[in-house]
Amino acid sequence: MAEFPREVTINEEGPREGFQFEKGPIPTARKIELIDALSKTGLKQIQVCSFVPPKNVPGMADADEVARGFTKHPGVRYIGLWLNEKGLQRALAIGRLDVRGTISLTASETFLKRNQNRTLQENVAAQHSIVEMFKQHNVPVERASMMAAFGCNFEGDIPVARVLDLVQQALDIAEAHGVTIKAFNFADTMAWATPDSIRRLVGTVREKFPRLRLGLHLHDTRGMGIANAYAGLEMGVDIFDASVAGLGGCPFAAHKGAAGNVCTEDLVFMCEEMGIKTGIDLDLLIEAARLAEDVVGHPLPGAVKSGGSLRKYRERAAAAA
Amino acid sequence: MAEFPREVTINEEGPREGFQFEKGPIPTARKIELIDALSKTGLKQIQVCSFVPPKNVPGMADADEVARGFTKHPGVRYIGLWLNEKGLQRALAIGRLDVRGTISLTASETFLKRNQNRTLQENVAAQHSIVEMFKQHNVPVERASMMAAFGCNFEGDIPVARVLDLVQQALDIAEAHGVTIKAFNFADTMAWATPDSIRRLVGTVREKFPRLRLGLHLHDTRGMGIANAYAGLEMGVDIFDASVAGLGGCPFAAHKGAAGNVCTEDLVFMCEEMGIKTGIDLDLLIEAARLAEDVVGHPLPGAVKSGGSLRKYRERAAAAA
Repeated sequence: MAEFPREVTINEEGPREGFQFEKGPIPTARKIELIDALSKTGLKQIQVCSFVPPKNVPGMADADEVARGFTKHPGVRYIGLWLNEKGLQRALAIGRLDVRGTISLTASETFLKRNQNRTLQENVAAQHSIVEMFKQHNVPVERASMMAAFGCNFEGDIPVARVLDLVQQALDIAEAHGVTIKAFNFADTMAWATPDSIRRLVGTVREKFPRLRLGLHLHDTRGMGIANAYAGLEMGVDIFDASVAGLGGCPFAAHKGAAGNVCTEDLVFMCEEMGIKTGIDLDLLIEAARLAEDVVGHPLPGAVKSGGSLRKYRERAAAAA
Repeated sequence: MAEFPREVTINEEGPREGFQFEKGPIPTARKIELIDALSKTGLKQIQVCSFVPPKNVPGMADADEVARGFTKHPGVRYIGLWLNEKGLQRALAIGRLDVRGTISLTASETFLKRNQNRTLQENVAAQHSIVEMFKQHNVPVERASMMAAFGCNFEGDIPVARVLDLVQQALDIAEAHGVTIKAFNFADTMAWATPDSIRRLVGTVREKFPRLRLGLHLHDTRGMGIANAYAGLEMGVDIFDASVAGLGGCPFAAHKGAAGNVCTEDLVFMCEEMGIKTGIDLDLLIEAARLAEDVVGHPLPGAVKSGGSLRKYRERAAAAA
């Protein structure tokens, strides 16, 4: 049988994913309203915004105001995303975010070239500089991630051997700078993964790097998000990125309207129903998901916010018995 | 590791589920257009309509015209749904449907009472009469099904022991009338199942009734549809009901807009990507799913119809390599 973890950590990325993707404009106060609602659900990490140039991502033009405006809730880590030193400095200047560094690799060279105009080896060199930058700013580095770890629209299926090689390279980069990677996050950036490929990749990485804690950043563009998370749970993965109500989208999909990140409340429903602790109150999270839908003003893909939790049915059944 | 089946049978229920659920009215010609599109995808069974009183289900008022109007495609079984002898006679009178009988049990007595005004034991008695009715009409009976097999909004979680007991009762009913049940279909009518409860129920049933072929009728009301199908595949289930584009809905959901049956093309995507044969051309099925969305005139929940298949990306990657 599967060796499920007893509890999982779910990193909420909805505010960043969603407000980056939505055509908007969405009032800053409403973004803050959603973050504050999420803060009360039991989530332990919320990514609140992205510090990127407004000309590239108009929806993040108010990132500083958002990051300064929400109410900090005890026990919640609030984080931001950045892509360069300027962004990092903005995140640090906020003074109320939990700023941590990540070594970021990409498994597809073609995707890397298109996205960041670097070869795989140029990116490794860039990561050395980035770790140095983190050290100069006293930003801890304990995490690495890999984009396009399962497949790429430009390069096709990604061999597991390449993933293993890149994991080793990330650990080597860390070692060269005296930092230790504790967790490794694999992103199915273009939604190529199936439960089978999740099991294969996670199983192989766990076998070769048994001390690494593994995480998954899953997309639901082809409807596999929750099934892939389940396969991850079966293999002992206990960190998941997710997006409330399925906020966000996929710029790589064949047609508009495609789903983005796996939906937080659907994932919480599955874990809690299977006895895996999330620390999250599903009914409060469903309320936040309905709020997210109200904030963006159109239907969002998550299912449980419409289907509802099972709590009231169980209570009614127990009362009738 | 999992013991996946080499191939699976997917029974398409979209036309019946969808046109029963949609507020409509949808022109008969457009219903037929969708059935004809589905016929060319490689699906081997399509449920085209439901023979129920028009006053109960206005969307099925044209069931006879639909059943007479589509073009039969070689190798495809076309079936209908009925709930009583009058409906069965209508299905038989069409003369071009594959009419087969099912012994239908329900795992929740409360649900059964609300739905059909029968106790569990009254329903067993009713099934004896129904099998006799099938025999009088020379309708073969090789299949049994169980509604609410995983949980019920009125009764809560369903114990596996009750499911086992009811499976035995269905086999006893069959034996009493000299017919043999070859396949047993478990329906998650109110979307209570998780991958874990799928594994538990299927595993227990397989152990006790190793000669039965098992099927799953899954709902996606809480986003678990594909993950539950995956868990079924892991346990060797090789028959699935599904609905193109996720046509249909759930009358038992907490909020309107909830998804219904698991989506056919998302299921086909998962199976084919994992090397499990469906016999279905995914790209043709995606076209049919987009047609379904056009026919009903609003977005439908399936993901792959927006995300797209991976074929063209693989072809492009292979050409570039």
